[in-house]
Amino acid sequence: MSDPNHGPTGYSLPLSPTGASAMLTPPPWHFAGEVVMVDYRVDPDRAARFLPPGLDLGPDPGAAAAVFADWQWCSDDGAELTDPQRCQFGEFLILLGCSAGDRVMARCPYAWVDSAVPMLRGWVQGMPKQFGEIHQTRTRSVGRAGPRFATNGRYDGTLSVRGKRIVEASVTLSERLDEPPWLHTVPLVHTRTFPGWVSDTPPVEELVTSQVTGVEFSEILAGEATLDFGAALDDDFAGLAPVSVGRGYVFGYAETLCGGALLAPPTASPPVAVGMTG
Amino acid sequence: MSDPNHGPTGYSLPLSPTGASAMLTPPPWHFAGEVVMVDYRVDPDRAARFLPPGLDLGPDPGAAAAVFADWQWCSDDGAELTDPQRCQFGEFLILLGCSAGDRVMARCPYAWVDSAVPMLRGWVQGMPKQFGEIHQTRTRSVGRAGPRFATNGRYDGTLSVRGKRIVEASVTLSERLDEPPWLHTVPLVHTRTFPGWVSDTPPVEELVTSQVTGVEFSEILAGEATLDFGAALDDDFAGLAPVSVGRGYVFGYAETLCGGALLAPPTASPPVAVGMTG
Amino acid sequence: MSDPNHGPTGYSLPLSPTGASAMLTPPPWHFAGEVVMVDYRVDPDRAARFLPPGLDLGPDPGAAAAVFADWQWCSDDGAELTDPQRCQFGEFLILLGCSAGDRVMARCPYAWVDSAVPMLRGWVQGMPKQFGEIHQTRTRSVGRAGPRFATNGRYDGTLSVRGKRIVEASVTLSERLDEPPWLHTVPLVHTRTFPGWVSDTPPVEELVTSQVTGVEFSEILAGEATLDFGAALDDDFAGLAPVSVGRGYVFGYAETLCGGALLAPPTASPPVAVGMTG
Amino acid sequence: MSDPNHGPTGYSLPLSPTGASAMLTPPPWHFAGEVVMVDYRVDPDRAARFLPPGLDLGPDPGAAAAVFADWQWCSDDGAELTDPQRCQFGEFLILLGCSAGDRVMARCPYAWVDSAVPMLRGWVQGMPKQFGEIHQTRTRSVGRAGPRFATNGRYDGTLSVRGKRIVEASVTLSERLDEPPWLHTVPLVHTRTFPGWVSDTPPVEELVTSQVTGVEFSEILAGEATLDFGAALDDDFAGLAPVSVGRGYVFGYAETLCGGALLAPPTASPPVAVGMTG
Repeated sequence: MSDPNHGPTGYSLPLSPTGASAMLTPPPWHFAGEVVMVDYRVDPDRAARFLPPGLDLGPDPGAAAAVFADWQWCSDDGAELTDPQRCQFGEFLILLGCSAGDRVMARCPYAWVDSAVPMLRGWVQGMPKQFGEIHQTRTRSVGRAGPRFATNGRYDGTLSVRGKRIVEASVTLSERLDEPPWLHTVPLVHTRTFPGWVSDTPPVEELVTSQVTGVEFSEILAGEATLDFGAALDDDFAGLAPVSVGRGYVFGYAETLCGGALLAPPTASPPVAVGMTG
Repeated sequence: MSDPNHGPTGYSLPLSPTGASAMLTPPPWHFAGEVVMVDYRVDPDRAARFLPPGLDLGPDPGAAAAVFADWQWCSDDGAELTDPQRCQFGEFLILLGCSAGDRVMARCPYAWVDSAVPMLRGWVQGMPKQFGEIHQTRTRSVGRAGPRFATNGRYDGTLSVRGKRIVEASVTLSERLDEPPWLHTVPLVHTRTFPGWVSDTPPVEELVTSQVTGVEFSEILAGEATLDFGAALDDDFAGLAPVSVGRGYVFGYAETLCGGALLAPPTASPPVAVGMTG
Repeated sequence: MSDPNHGPTGYSLPLSPTGASAMLTPPPWHFAGEVVMVDYRVDPDRAARFLPPGLDLGPDPGAAAAVFADWQWCSDDGAELTDPQRCQFGEFLILLGCSAGDRVMARCPYAWVDSAVPMLRGWVQGMPKQFGEIHQTRTRSVGRAGPRFATNGRYDGTLSVRGKRIVEASVTLSERLDEPPWLHTVPLVHTRTFPGWVSDTPPVEELVTSQVTGVEFSEILAGEATLDFGAALDDDFAGLAPVSVGRGYVFGYAETLCGGALLAPPTASPPVAVGMTG
Repeated sequence: MSDPNHGPTGYSLPLSPTGASAMLTPPPWHFAGEVVMVDYRVDPDRAARFLPPGLDLGPDPGAAAAVFADWQWCSDDGAELTDPQRCQFGEFLILLGCSAGDRVMARCPYAWVDSAVPMLRGWVQGMPKQFGEIHQTRTRSVGRAGPRFATNGRYDGTLSVRGKRIVEASVTLSERLDEPPWLHTVPLVHTRTFPGWVSDTPPVEELVTSQVTGVEFSEILAGEATLDFGAALDDDFAGLAPVSVGRGYVFGYAETLCGGALLAPPTASPPVAVGMTG
């Protein structure tokens, strides 16, 4: 029984006598997904305006990626996996190449998911997850209505926000790669932000990276890609529209998200790998 | 250009000058899906009340199955595949073993999908598809948050209707089968029904089977299963609740649905294989 | 108990032993809604191509309306009203002025709803209802976050289909009218259509009007309006985009839909009022 | 143009060059809604376990309410009102009577909304909003398919969470009240909570009340009520199930939410009215 002097408890709201009602479970969180990713180029000047002090565009100014992922997640005891309505979500995010000192990293200026728990968990980490409708092609093992995970397989992804189509992408597979696309392998650096409420209390603001273990990639297939940004959400978002489009990739990816760390000074040793889900 | 004397046209409503606005495309329709299926037993007397004249319970009275499927579909030109929001849907259905004379078949008394086009296409065929929330575990190629399609893989499926949980099922894989479960291989027999509207016009009522080609099964894995019916929808539905639960199966399945045929007299030769999607 | 020789029964699929599982209840169906409507003009030549033989553009070629409605419905016993998830739906439809001989009528070339039962019930009547996301401003009795049903009240409506915004409309109220807008008072004429399935069976095709009783209008308020068609669905739909926009209207409306009648010959006496829901 | 030395900005994530992409707008936020509320009693011992140190059950231990609300909201410039998909949401919450010293207040242990912005805005304030499906009867001005806001009008509300029905309530109006139900008039006291992420950083935890202006009530109608909790979410939630059910209420309500204040010591003067939305 809980301590009556302590009051309700829990990792997150809602607080309750035993903590059982908390919307979020504490980390670690395990993720396994299927990823459709497109490399593209943005205007470096526009990209730079999304970087906080301490970060710069790094060795490849204007490098960007659009990433669709079809996730399942679970807490450490795996309990969520028995309820697929609970453990599945779709995600779309944008990545920008950047550096913190001599460390090459990635910045996620925009992300959308289609489920509330991952959205809020994103805010705990500093990932700017909003709510959208995300759809992506699924691999089929038989028949004509969908691709094999093989040469000539075509994968599409779409994002709509509040009833407007925002992003459409496609990848047609033609080759196997030995390495994953680099923007999916470097650490992410987030500005963990939460508004203040009481008048004299400042908002939470921390420059953080995520601590990740258990990274796994499936075979990586790649090929030609398309990427279109439709109705612009606002001028800031429009500033990250594709100037040109590169290769596309399809692969399975897994990671375990364990917690976060303040961005160490640029002279520090390399951080552990940093993931992109939540 | 269309014939101005003919008026608007199309395979279905909405009719329009060129027919381009029709909600449904004409068959053939191609389907490819991942299936989670559980064999179970129902009270044979309750099952018999779901069979129209001309059908009986056949050689295995009380044989039933609960089937979850995660589909992609396309018309003959494959156009829908480039819009995953359009070509994907989830389905849950119940099958009852039955016979028409000496032909062993299956009857689908209830079905739910989560997308409007497949729902209406079901009515064209005589499948009683309604709208529900369907979720089922997806195979993962990496990581802890989901099963491999292999021994010890666990797959769950759930159906909710208007905010109430109706069906929960699970399958834990332990063996490979050489043959698919028989209720997924026999022809389906539907009562194609559409209400009349003008007072003297009778409803459409035809006892039909579907004409299917291109049937493909992936490897078939099987194991122990659970199946629970929650809040009953109505007493008729409750009459098909599990009396006992058998094996569960997970497999990929594809078919092409070409059209329908009136149920031939019992002395006719065996029909072609008949599918379960739409 | 049902007759075991008859087999399963019901007004619609799913057929079941007692008929209790039917997705649709038989008419009459009672509707009560709040309507946001905008008069507009289309190219008469494009409109004419949506009319079947027997109909012409009538006395006001090019007259059209865009109608948003926020409905509740029930069967004759009112049972659905105790489950708001079941009895509520949104609708958007387009109306075109037309005539059958000397009878002024309206044609509904396109309609969308956000609930499956009204969608399918539309097909029973010949209304071409598809699935969309429909949103419209609701009257508020207090506060700043919404209009009073009074001068200066502003009402907006939006339609999205598969994640793309299709229609946006607004009405700003400035006056009270003594009569409802005429396109909402004339009978609707539908082409009841249902595809055939068995190869030699033709589709259902009947030119019908709906039989309606219990029509009620609230006070009718009107004012300036806007109407925009966004991303076109197809060229046929695009042919009905606004050439110019007229007045807008906001009002409550109720009707009871009792059944349908074949369109009587042009010399027949005037039909009863014909409604626009289902 | 933003200060390039400052980096991206905004009231909330996503941060962007001008701040235009922030998911949340800063307060004040204006709300106008229609409320269906049911008074009920809980086991006082179970209720007490939901109160943090500094609060007690106050003068009426076990007093509780279940509140459904159909909201529209906007920021100070009203921009959201022109997009009904954006400005509308449904909410269900539970209130428990409590006291902070001699000030009578209310505690909200559980809340659900059906839109992401209000959910996250709840967390900014300390309201434990999760995601659910909320439906409630809407007043109709004409016809049989819905109530007038008058004697004999019946209003129902339902909450489902992840496909399971959790709460069902009804109110049948029989009388007019001069005062709103007291639990809807006292200040709310929240534990503003946000998990920490970096290992040495504690979570945000503040006992706060919300600062509200512009409170408006419409006429208040009341009558007999029912309230049922269905499938329990967890044992903590089940502890707040109804021991007995009191009166029900239907009314319009508006407020403007301006910010928050730390709970002042019990000897302080009475706080301003405190609202229940967000």
